[in-house]
Amino acid sequence: MTPTDLRLATACCVPLLDAPISETNARQMAQLFKALADPARLRLLSLIAAQPDGEACNCELVEPLGLSQPTVSHHLKVLHDSGLLDRERRGQWVHYRIRRDQLEAMRSALQ
Amino acid sequence: MTPTDLRLATACCVPLLDAPISETNARQMAQLFKALADPARLRLLSLIAAQPDGEACNCELVEPLGLSQPTVSHHLKVLHDSGLLDRERRGQWVHYRIRRDQLEAMRSALQ
Repeated sequence: MTPTDLRLATACCVPLLDAPISETNARQMAQLFKALADPARLRLLSLIAAQPDGEACNCELVEPLGLSQPTVSHHLKVLHDSGLLDRERRGQWVHYRIRRDQLEAMRSALQ
Repeated sequence: MTPTDLRLATACCVPLLDAPISETNARQMAQLFKALADPARLRLLSLIAAQPDGEACNCELVEPLGLSQPTVSHHLKVLHDSGLLDRERRGQWVHYRIRRDQLEAMRSALQ
């Protein structure tokens, strides 16, 4: 987990509806929700989660999305930078896995 | 509730992590998350939820946000159009209330 991920994960745990949130928390949480505010990124999360072992290689994600490889790589980077995906390089491929703790933190913010 | 609200509310109930979602569902859900992908809109939701009766007049929201009245009105409209706020006009003011069912539907999509 990079220092950026840590900051976002902490920011996300502020409950939105309990008390007025600060400008700083609002900025950090908006950045996280922005990661979900794109159809291609939602489909990527959904495709990765649907794999039998919950893990997908970037090589498997281009075709079902019907987008170019650089576009898919960009969206995967946004999701990783937002702390929503873990990634691991194995040889020439990168493998992605959902960070369910981060999604859970976002859910708790909306409670 | 307008027909648009109904469509968005229904679209939002597709669970993201159970099976690959369709392009149509992804587009509709992304539109909803876009409503939360802005610091001012998150602060508005938080301010309205924090009112003693869970309701705020547009006249009460401009000052704490520190933004112009037209900007606040724009963000309130986005939140209303996304089904996240109910609104009721009383005389010259409009009163807003959180649609907790819609937030709950968004939470269930991330489960």
